[in-house]
Amino acid sequence: MATVLILGAGVMGSAIAVPAADNGHRVHLVGTHLDGAIIEALKADRAAHPTLHAPLPAGIAPHAIDELTPELAAGADLIIIGVSSPGIPWAMDRLEQNLRRPVPVALVTKGLHLSETGLETFTDRVAQRLEAIDMAAPVIGIGGPCIAKELADRQPTAVVYAGEDEATVGHIAELMQTANYRISRSRDVIGVEICAALKNLLTIAVSAMYSRHAERNPQPAKPRVMNPAAAVFNQAVREMAGIAAWLGGDPMTAYDLAGLGDLHVTVGGGRNSRLGDHLGAGLGISQALSGPMAGLTVEGVDTGRVLAPALEAAFSAGRLDRADFPVIRALLAAIRDDTPLDLDIADLRPQIEISADRRQHA
Amino acid sequence: MATVLILGAGVMGSAIAVPAADNGHRVHLVGTHLDGAIIEALKADRAAHPTLHAPLPAGIAPHAIDELTPELAAGADLIIIGVSSPGIPWAMDRLEQNLRRPVPVALVTKGLHLSETGLETFTDRVAQRLEAIDMAAPVIGIGGPCIAKELADRQPTAVVYAGEDEATVGHIAELMQTANYRISRSRDVIGVEICAALKNLLTIAVSAMYSRHAERNPQPAKPRVMNPAAAVFNQAVREMAGIAAWLGGDPMTAYDLAGLGDLHVTVGGGRNSRLGDHLGAGLGISQALSGPMAGLTVEGVDTGRVLAPALEAAFSAGRLDRADFPVIRALLAAIRDDTPLDLDIADLRPQIEISADRRQHA
Repeated sequence: MATVLILGAGVMGSAIAVPAADNGHRVHLVGTHLDGAIIEALKADRAAHPTLHAPLPAGIAPHAIDELTPELAAGADLIIIGVSSPGIPWAMDRLEQNLRRPVPVALVTKGLHLSETGLETFTDRVAQRLEAIDMAAPVIGIGGPCIAKELADRQPTAVVYAGEDEATVGHIAELMQTANYRISRSRDVIGVEICAALKNLLTIAVSAMYSRHAERNPQPAKPRVMNPAAAVFNQAVREMAGIAAWLGGDPMTAYDLAGLGDLHVTVGGGRNSRLGDHLGAGLGISQALSGPMAGLTVEGVDTGRVLAPALEAAFSAGRLDRADFPVIRALLAAIRDDTPLDLDIADLRPQIEISADRRQHA
Repeated sequence: MATVLILGAGVMGSAIAVPAADNGHRVHLVGTHLDGAIIEALKADRAAHPTLHAPLPAGIAPHAIDELTPELAAGADLIIIGVSSPGIPWAMDRLEQNLRRPVPVALVTKGLHLSETGLETFTDRVAQRLEAIDMAAPVIGIGGPCIAKELADRQPTAVVYAGEDEATVGHIAELMQTANYRISRSRDVIGVEICAALKNLLTIAVSAMYSRHAERNPQPAKPRVMNPAAAVFNQAVREMAGIAAWLGGDPMTAYDLAGLGDLHVTVGGGRNSRLGDHLGAGLGISQALSGPMAGLTVEGVDTGRVLAPALEAAFSAGRLDRADFPVIRALLAAIRDDTPLDLDIADLRPQIEISADRRQHA
């Protein structure tokens, strides 16, 4: 039995407590300062998570943020960070205050960060911060198609855990894997993190195709037009591979769970997909986010804003070919100009060549 | 302007007449002996195709099978075969009777054939037959996500044309490409044909996940369980890559339009997907095909029956690792034993290594 400390009691942080508890580990679920109501509800009833809509096992211990102490952290064999993407600096501050010895960290939070040195994954940021506070420890990225409620409901789910040290990834995967939560292992932490962040952005374009292209001769048995979304889904995977390779990852990671697999479920529902519906129907982003989606944060838009300047610089320097990224360029233009998505099928490109030195998959 | 002769006036044969006509070509749409009613309806009204549910351009010339003459065939610059998969021998007999000079052939019909020498693609079969009748000509395979009605409705669609001779593929792609029908080119005709055939079989398993795994704590905004289907979709693409490589194709073809792209639309609807729904809900194949799907042919089942003995031989000989193909094995067992689909998420595998000599993409 190990002790797993989860920071963040939103849907993903809470859901990943389920396989940990199912494996008999001691699980501490620590809410952020925004999760007060969730923790209070869970303390009264483990089945009462107000947004997850699935029961948690009775053995999970919920904690308010002020109950995160050096003593609690000291007992952890694994810390899982499951805060929202803007919460990463906050989470690292909490670890700085409470960590007294290095503990491996696994990240379900996804996004990109632009530092002075360029685009960074969240695993990079966390690893750097741990090093800066003399708590250097392995950092694992978690990707793949995993809707939180379904994980908590113990629906069959396949994910990928990625880290530079194979033994650590293997050890953490063994701690977390259950009969229904299946864990592939990868050394390509950059690729997994890039794909996990980009799938939110790219989902917006795939989902936009469904609302943008209405059936011309409607049939009862055929509710929606499929060809354009399939073409853009395919192109989106190509572009994930291209961005992953550019940033030092393995393009093949895009063609697996963290890429096409996660894109598949993300297109199936959620905020990024809803925003895509609105863009396809002719709204601009600010119209959607001040109207039907008022008050909601859409992570794909944040990822697009972080990506845009670095990508533009790479195009200008000739490090990437603009023509290879029609979907991302259309998305970044829609974000920049606050316009509906303008994506021409004629701009889609054949598969980018995968060079031989990129096959490093475990 | 060129002359395009299409053999087969079902939904796909008829739909592909649309881009050909839109490019100003003379288009002859020749029905099979089973397409009599379709041709009769089209002769009276080009918008009256009884199963396509989309209008055809007025310029298309419909012909009954007895109107296919050596004179009509002699004028063709391109012959497109769009019959159903069991119709291939019949179509080749018609070409033998009517061809007086070699004409390039493009195939939208998909399937696998087991000959004495092993598994064959339909492009192989057609090329061999053309050679046998002294009419050797390039044979092009057409793959990718292309629902016929949407092609006829001029919805944005991306496909791939594959053939050994790059110049011929380029020429035919130029004849057929329109603003909304976008054609990637590939030299990997084996890979494209294998993926196009396998996607029908594999769709059955992906679709079965939706009916097999019901929501445990239903929410109005969440109509279906997505994680298992995404995991199996991902694994299905891996297995297409493995089979393509085994049969001499490029595994990367599975990670593009003919593979994951076509699987995406095929899971979205059609007979293979409907059969998957029934298998996931607990029916065996004969129950589904004698009950709710009585009278329907499901191409994925035919493909599975052809594939099974060759695959079993490859497993036994150690040329393929049984463990790399859990989805196909579960499907073949369901077909062989007439049982519901028995697929354990724990059997899914990490991505099969793609060897460096397999990157031959154009």
